[in-house]
Amino acid sequence: MMKRKNFAVVLSGCGRMDGSEIHESTTLLLALTEAGHTYECFAPNVEQFKVSNNLTSENMLSKRNVMVESARIARGKIKDIKTYSPTDFDGILFPGGMGAVLNLCDYGAKGLNCLVNQDVERAILSTYDDKKPLGAMCIAPVLLAKVMGKFGIEITLGNDKEYADTVKDIKKMGAKHHNIAASGVCVDKANKVVSTPAYMLCQDIKEVYDGAKNFVKEISELK
Amino acid sequence: MMKRKNFAVVLSGCGRMDGSEIHESTTLLLALTEAGHTYECFAPNVEQFKVSNNLTSENMLSKRNVMVESARIARGKIKDIKTYSPTDFDGILFPGGMGAVLNLCDYGAKGLNCLVNQDVERAILSTYDDKKPLGAMCIAPVLLAKVMGKFGIEITLGNDKEYADTVKDIKKMGAKHHNIAASGVCVDKANKVVSTPAYMLCQDIKEVYDGAKNFVKEISELK
Repeated sequence: MMKRKNFAVVLSGCGRMDGSEIHESTTLLLALTEAGHTYECFAPNVEQFKVSNNLTSENMLSKRNVMVESARIARGKIKDIKTYSPTDFDGILFPGGMGAVLNLCDYGAKGLNCLVNQDVERAILSTYDDKKPLGAMCIAPVLLAKVMGKFGIEITLGNDKEYADTVKDIKKMGAKHHNIAASGVCVDKANKVVSTPAYMLCQDIKEVYDGAKNFVKEISELK
Repeated sequence: MMKRKNFAVVLSGCGRMDGSEIHESTTLLLALTEAGHTYECFAPNVEQFKVSNNLTSENMLSKRNVMVESARIARGKIKDIKTYSPTDFDGILFPGGMGAVLNLCDYGAKGLNCLVNQDVERAILSTYDDKKPLGAMCIAPVLLAKVMGKFGIEITLGNDKEYADTVKDIKKMGAKHHNIAASGVCVDKANKVVSTPAYMLCQDIKEVYDGAKNFVKEISELK
């Protein structure tokens, strides 16, 4: 019988081009609930790095707030990441979407020398210090690599052919990369870091959901 | 062996307070894919009735386009509902969220005498004329009641205790109401209309997903 756990899910907006990828975030919340776990959503209360028209891919002139837009996925139940403490949770999870590398850190714009939102960095490091697991989907492992590369964490971005430049960057950050299939999971037991490729490789929403279920299973079983 | 079918999914924005409910839309796309079906997303290319802060519930001053915001859920693959023809599809599906009754019709603001977006109305009536099934989740059956009440369609909004006023309104539109449990489905075989309560009653995302699976199963089996 699996223990019922409580996870923090950190969102970064609402929509794959400038926020959290919606299918990844939703299937993660579904997989957590189906496994009998509970969750609370968090996001930084800051302006989005940019606003993208998710139909045309063009930038839009308007401004949006990361926590306010994330509330669309969280159905209004979301807290400022400033208030996160690892003592309340059994782990912290980061769905993908470009928001993870534009709003939580700015790797998507700045590359290797990107900056990380200070509250997000504190959340990651305090969870690691508290020996609780951390998980990331799709492009979000880059955020963990930036903050935790110094610990030599092992992660996946899918495979190193399709994402060669990004894989090179996370290696420079200190992380080790593993090639993993679409719905598979990379587990770094020593550092308690779990990652899954999601839409880096998945061809449809069913593969993303299968990956989310495997991801939740692996992170739940980490001792 | 179930026949592989192709469904149109009509979105109304992105987020429960002013667009399509994200969990309902996403679990619907997931349930369709898991059942072996394909889908194409549509939305009206019009300005949203309003923009809501989904964290505070306050109205926001900015303007947003229904199709552009729906593209966040559809990952950029979405068409103008003007281009919809029932001959290309085996049915048309409407997830819930207040967008269904603010952007596809304006029942959420105007009540019984609401207006329906003309292209949405044409999509619904042409599908009915073509003897293809129509499905609606959560509050979206009200849209079908407004357009198809004259045919005496049978639908559910969950139960008539919690949503007494809305149930009264859809009866005035000519529809018949059935009380249905959270993840259950109301099937009107004569008119080929299927509805499920989703977040009208569901307590969590697992119940919404279970309802979406039942909904897809019932609409797929309609002759």
